[in-house]
Amino acid sequence: MARRLIGLSVAMLLAGAAFPSAAETPKRAEVAATVEQQHDATIKALQDWVALPTIAAEKRNTPAGAEYMMQLARDAGFQQAKIIPTDGVPAVFATLDAGAPTTLGIYFMYDVKQYDPAEWSSPPLEGKLVDRPGEGTAIVGRGVVNQKGPQMAFLAALKAIQASGRKLPVNLVLVAEGEEEVASTHFDQVVAVPEVQAALAKTIGVFIPSAAQSKDGSANITLGAKGAVEFQLIVSGEATDKYPKTDIHSSNYARIESPVWRLVKALDTLVADDGYTPAIDGWFENVKPLTERQKQLIAEGAKLNPEAGEKTALGVGRWINDEDYVTSLERFYSQPTVNIQGIVAGYDGPGGKTVLPSRAEAKLEFRLVPAMTKAEVVSKLKAHLTKRGFDDVEVVISGGYGPNETEEDALLIRAQKRLFEETGVPYSIRPRNAGSWPGVVFNGAPLNLPASQFGLGRGGGAHAPNEWFLIDSTDPKVYGLDQVTMAYVDYLYVIAQEAAR
Amino acid sequence: MARRLIGLSVAMLLAGAAFPSAAETPKRAEVAATVEQQHDATIKALQDWVALPTIAAEKRNTPAGAEYMMQLARDAGFQQAKIIPTDGVPAVFATLDAGAPTTLGIYFMYDVKQYDPAEWSSPPLEGKLVDRPGEGTAIVGRGVVNQKGPQMAFLAALKAIQASGRKLPVNLVLVAEGEEEVASTHFDQVVAVPEVQAALAKTIGVFIPSAAQSKDGSANITLGAKGAVEFQLIVSGEATDKYPKTDIHSSNYARIESPVWRLVKALDTLVADDGYTPAIDGWFENVKPLTERQKQLIAEGAKLNPEAGEKTALGVGRWINDEDYVTSLERFYSQPTVNIQGIVAGYDGPGGKTVLPSRAEAKLEFRLVPAMTKAEVVSKLKAHLTKRGFDDVEVVISGGYGPNETEEDALLIRAQKRLFEETGVPYSIRPRNAGSWPGVVFNGAPLNLPASQFGLGRGGGAHAPNEWFLIDSTDPKVYGLDQVTMAYVDYLYVIAQEAAR
Repeated sequence: MARRLIGLSVAMLLAGAAFPSAAETPKRAEVAATVEQQHDATIKALQDWVALPTIAAEKRNTPAGAEYMMQLARDAGFQQAKIIPTDGVPAVFATLDAGAPTTLGIYFMYDVKQYDPAEWSSPPLEGKLVDRPGEGTAIVGRGVVNQKGPQMAFLAALKAIQASGRKLPVNLVLVAEGEEEVASTHFDQVVAVPEVQAALAKTIGVFIPSAAQSKDGSANITLGAKGAVEFQLIVSGEATDKYPKTDIHSSNYARIESPVWRLVKALDTLVADDGYTPAIDGWFENVKPLTERQKQLIAEGAKLNPEAGEKTALGVGRWINDEDYVTSLERFYSQPTVNIQGIVAGYDGPGGKTVLPSRAEAKLEFRLVPAMTKAEVVSKLKAHLTKRGFDDVEVVISGGYGPNETEEDALLIRAQKRLFEETGVPYSIRPRNAGSWPGVVFNGAPLNLPASQFGLGRGGGAHAPNEWFLIDSTDPKVYGLDQVTMAYVDYLYVIAQEAAR
Repeated sequence: MARRLIGLSVAMLLAGAAFPSAAETPKRAEVAATVEQQHDATIKALQDWVALPTIAAEKRNTPAGAEYMMQLARDAGFQQAKIIPTDGVPAVFATLDAGAPTTLGIYFMYDVKQYDPAEWSSPPLEGKLVDRPGEGTAIVGRGVVNQKGPQMAFLAALKAIQASGRKLPVNLVLVAEGEEEVASTHFDQVVAVPEVQAALAKTIGVFIPSAAQSKDGSANITLGAKGAVEFQLIVSGEATDKYPKTDIHSSNYARIESPVWRLVKALDTLVADDGYTPAIDGWFENVKPLTERQKQLIAEGAKLNPEAGEKTALGVGRWINDEDYVTSLERFYSQPTVNIQGIVAGYDGPGGKTVLPSRAEAKLEFRLVPAMTKAEVVSKLKAHLTKRGFDDVEVVISGGYGPNETEEDALLIRAQKRLFEETGVPYSIRPRNAGSWPGVVFNGAPLNLPASQFGLGRGGGAHAPNEWFLIDSTDPKVYGLDQVTMAYVDYLYVIAQEAAR
């Protein structure tokens, strides 16, 4: 089930066909030629977008990034595009009416992760094309895979279809936010705008363009994603006179309480002594165990992504508790977590410094699985701390959302399966993405829509230095920019055809 | 006992006498006049010294600071001065033979604490003279009170006595280290050098110049100091393949262990849930409780330093466990502590960042009281962690030494009492300094010497921005630079006379 190779497609791959075709895309060769003609312009457009990083955590290029996003949508044929203000960074709402019977929802994020140029081998905002040995030519820049590259390929697909005067096979509703990297703090406000909600309600579901092809050319269909809630725990002399207002000489710790120790004591109660099992009161109450089908999908997926490569890529030699690969993958997809992203407390320079710090902050994030909700875990965290007397530990919820889950028989998913099968892309089905995206905004009430990630192509370094996205691939099984673009073209036609069945 | 005002001295203070005299200092007025003549040159010499900060933690101006220290000693009349190499920053050993029957040991530190110029109101290396409202004129610069100012005043005292061709009333043995601010990592090596040890063995004890006069003019005699041991606990993917080698996407925390949580779990075992009582196995085994005399001294000292002023200065409203002032002071002087100076782990920028950190480091320091030793607590810490299975927690001991304690009837202390009484300086006796200095090197085996801090004058901001030391005092009860210098002159003569009794 999970790994399929259609005979015809294998033959095409062996013949080195640049564009494995979905038979149903009309005048496909003409569109493909347009995509090739657009190639340089699409790269230039991606580079220009990379040069304008929106980083919500740093209040950088907000709202400039929203204006830019709005213009990108208009340039791609959306007849209507507007800024939707929020209490945080503004979002963009756009619609493209093709007069089609079917309407598809698209989710974009126009923000990117923070970066430190010193850690990069080429400037993170330049989007340089560099040789990637054994793979081809890649663009290197912040956001090229997460998510500007795949999104730009999707926009290029829209342009290519329309370039010949044709209409799209589906209508589109686009919502683009600028706070994905800070856990979509205000995205629920966007979807709650009546006009946006009404437009989304007419869609058959919402997908986010992504690039997750493996080096061997295999792809994934994901049936949901964990939720993520980011928060900080702060203990500080600003909040209570138990602790000093500024760092003071550490000899005073003999008579004055330490906000750092207080934070350590509070943190300690959140996770069991094994260092990974959450210990917040009632944490597992609503956690749904994996179904037999989900376990089956995980076991099949394990065969497609060999353990050794995974360990090398992650820089580890062991999984939690020295578990075997499949067990660790079940844990990966099924376990809700309480991660510490970082701790900021006191002296952080070389060696030591004899201070009693005045402030301690831990940055954490929950990852949630069905049927947990953001409201539930925030409430449980606060109750847990209060019950243990940690009233002086400030809880700052900086963003987040619950998990999302879409059925295998949803139109969005069926279309992906059909496309992969018809174009000969081997794929596995993941029961869930262990990472997060705010699909719950579409997937949950009141919209209750299917929500998925879709896209071919390949990249890496999301949230890390030297983020890359493959532009020209030397391996015909792995898609470069133009093939990725054509996969979006095909996806739109397959969706239209599946909807008409 | 603790607070004394001799009638004569009070009368002198009321008369505004600039130099309360110790009757026994011969030709005192002549020396005092020399001190006044040297005034500008002494300030200039202090400013020059401040301009060359030795910071061991940053490997800054080592060994340049040692060379400078050696020259300062020679300029002050030490006939012999040499660099003593160590495995770390070099020390200086100098002797001044005055042909006197009594030899006094002097301890200097020529290094200073790290600083961030952005936090200072005047450049930390310029030693600007600024008006300090209500107190007079102060020099502001890194190290001016801790310890270059008091030490420069001591050197000025030596110069003033010798300026008229006179010999000092005592011989001197000086040892100066450049690693005091990193817990005297290699100072034991210095004292172990046979020549140094032999010279020190002939002294009646060793003192470090200091400035601890309160705003009301009162002073302290301290009968020892806590020890300090600085160390770091590190959990890292560099050391074990359980943890990633670089920061990776935080979704992986569902299947890969976190070095940050591991560190939190290890830390948690070191201190009880109250956040201040050390919980290391056997920690209190050798802790001597306060004697009745020590409690009496603490209670008397409490009267001299009102609680409200202490709280304001420290920026707190409460003591540990909401204890009353005297109880909190008993805790301050008697309790050995396990302080966290800082934690460095993962993301430390604004907001959050979805990473699983590859490394976590806590910077800690023990403060020790008699009869604990450095070797004892290091051994107990390691045994404690090993017993609980924390074999992946690396312990790096970066420096430290045990506590020191000197009897009230030691010559060094008797001379201080007599000087304060004869010059009308109200004083209290502290059973112990809650801060630390490596007096144990002298105080412990094999030298077993009295070790003390001594000095008048006033300053603040040690280890903090805008460190200051009073140069000209508007309050005759509080000593400025020249009076401080004369107090050192008097101290040398009083010691010589007490020794001759």
